[in-house]
Amino acid sequence: MNIEQVDIDLGVRSYPILIGPDLIDDESLLARHVQARNLLIVSNTTVAPLYLQRLQHSLGERRVGSVILPDGEQHKTLESMALIIDALIEQRLNRDAAVLALGGGVIGDMAGFAAACYQRGIDYVQVPTTLLAQVDSSVGGKTGVNHPQAKNMIGAFHQPRCVIADTRVLRSLAEREYRAGIAEIIKYGMIHDAALLDWLEQSAEALLAREDEAIMYAVRRSCEIKAAVVAIDEREQGLRAILNLGHTFGHAIETATGYGRWLHGEAVAAGMVIAADMSRRLGWLHEADCERLIRLLRRFGLPVDAPHIGAQRARDLMGLDKKVLDGRIRLVLLPQLGQAQVVSDYTSEALDASLRAYFDPAGERRI
Amino acid sequence: MNIEQVDIDLGVRSYPILIGPDLIDDESLLARHVQARNLLIVSNTTVAPLYLQRLQHSLGERRVGSVILPDGEQHKTLESMALIIDALIEQRLNRDAAVLALGGGVIGDMAGFAAACYQRGIDYVQVPTTLLAQVDSSVGGKTGVNHPQAKNMIGAFHQPRCVIADTRVLRSLAEREYRAGIAEIIKYGMIHDAALLDWLEQSAEALLAREDEAIMYAVRRSCEIKAAVVAIDEREQGLRAILNLGHTFGHAIETATGYGRWLHGEAVAAGMVIAADMSRRLGWLHEADCERLIRLLRRFGLPVDAPHIGAQRARDLMGLDKKVLDGRIRLVLLPQLGQAQVVSDYTSEALDASLRAYFDPAGERRI
Repeated sequence: MNIEQVDIDLGVRSYPILIGPDLIDDESLLARHVQARNLLIVSNTTVAPLYLQRLQHSLGERRVGSVILPDGEQHKTLESMALIIDALIEQRLNRDAAVLALGGGVIGDMAGFAAACYQRGIDYVQVPTTLLAQVDSSVGGKTGVNHPQAKNMIGAFHQPRCVIADTRVLRSLAEREYRAGIAEIIKYGMIHDAALLDWLEQSAEALLAREDEAIMYAVRRSCEIKAAVVAIDEREQGLRAILNLGHTFGHAIETATGYGRWLHGEAVAAGMVIAADMSRRLGWLHEADCERLIRLLRRFGLPVDAPHIGAQRARDLMGLDKKVLDGRIRLVLLPQLGQAQVVSDYTSEALDASLRAYFDPAGERRI
Repeated sequence: MNIEQVDIDLGVRSYPILIGPDLIDDESLLARHVQARNLLIVSNTTVAPLYLQRLQHSLGERRVGSVILPDGEQHKTLESMALIIDALIEQRLNRDAAVLALGGGVIGDMAGFAAACYQRGIDYVQVPTTLLAQVDSSVGGKTGVNHPQAKNMIGAFHQPRCVIADTRVLRSLAEREYRAGIAEIIKYGMIHDAALLDWLEQSAEALLAREDEAIMYAVRRSCEIKAAVVAIDEREQGLRAILNLGHTFGHAIETATGYGRWLHGEAVAAGMVIAADMSRRLGWLHEADCERLIRLLRRFGLPVDAPHIGAQRARDLMGLDKKVLDGRIRLVLLPQLGQAQVVSDYTSEALDASLRAYFDPAGERRI
């Protein structure tokens, strides 16, 4: 089987995303794409027992150390990042060394942030082992950790030298985690590519069966779409924010329920439904569009309703979100399927109605 | 009195360094150069009682919060940086806010690093209150904290929006701190500008008396020289390393004696003497050049000898230094006064002889 390659064009920081089955066993591919002779692999207690040894073996003659962190978003902290730095120092790794992240988005974010900060920046290679990380963390250069009071508050932009997205490692992923990753793929369709929504409807079975070809297509298209958006706006001044469709509402869900209770993709799924609902109230999306989104999410077993934390609490939690400019919450809304826009001049009635509909216990959902 | 201005040319990240007396009281200057409407001032327990209120007053109508950290290099840790992040979050500061560092290099490095990481980068303004910080931290964009086992191991490149170097605040600086700052000015002369060495010899009295005009000249020339070196090599791949003259030896001194026992500038002073000695052994500097350096350092009350920690211990401590490439220690040496070079193909005999001469209890100094 051929492998897919997406080239992220960032001048001197350009890098490839390689997508295909069993890439972590492909010694010659790793030899071509991982230049550093000294590596620290960062992984977690779930992923390391499955893949660390195989990957280490494929890395051949290099000096490869490792640091294994506990699994889970609750460990995405400055303290865990400091443990990676400790390991880099203990193993006396210099500026020519690289950090290799073997794990999901949490591991990638922390390992990337440690690489960004260690000696003010060393190389970083990603081997994402969740679908979410393959379609989301592979592009954009965002790294970082959470603050006890808000997600992703501490971090850096740091581009990887390459991303190795092995479709086969996704087979060991828990069903719920896998489906949460699909939420982000649906998001790419919603904001930029209505044809991807068609494909998802047609290929749901193959994708849910984790067939290599289906995953390869979905990951490639997702990375291409994200790259297209990020290329225009690398530092997230404007357009890039459309990638946050569903995230502002989703963050409120994740924070209110405690990190890790809802998976990120699940919160994004429910958040997208709220964003679609609000878009409908503003006269953008049709009711049929909202129904189509809900049907698609359900097809992949994703939540389409928010927990009833109360509209006011949701609003409060959204207030500390990064996407606030001068106190005004900017939201990603949908003029139509396959097209998104960052909006701050919406009527607060529409926001209030959507928040009440989805977050209040007695909220009246119109659909 | 006119103020001096050095413009650091970095494209979209260009910024001015303003140098002159009582600038922290200059409301119109601050209004022109500090754009953010929301600020967090980061200071320490020594500087804040002296200048925080004055600065806050001059910042006028802005929303200005503050966080006061304990004073000292031993507090330049990831934990202190986290306290700054906590304050940013507590005060609900967004991406449009700025961090203002009011203090010496430690405060500047930590505040700059927190600004670099908060929401992946917000604005940062420096008000350096030590001579060292004015001549060193004002240019180069280096921010960061120490690791318990090695200095400056964790950090980021993050350029300030402007630097306000008030010459008058230096009057409250302890004599020893002030003199340590002069060591870095001497360094700029040694690596890039023999005429600055002449000026230092002629102006020693005025500079030691902390006369505004003398400080303004010394700070301006230092910033200009550092800027010229950094402009060629922003990310420290090659030439920029000449700014580390005396630092590799100095780091060994600082680490062996425990952070804070020797002031950074003092360690650099002694380190420069060792670098000069080694340059002489390699047939570069003349004995008279070394003597001139020693005389100049002594004129400013700076140490010209290293603590006798043993040559082997010094070597070990230099091994974990950032300036190691592929296991080979690169050193900054002096072909002549006013000119420096990064060298890795020196004879190890010359290094050994200089290390023994300065670090061994019974070392034989030739001068």
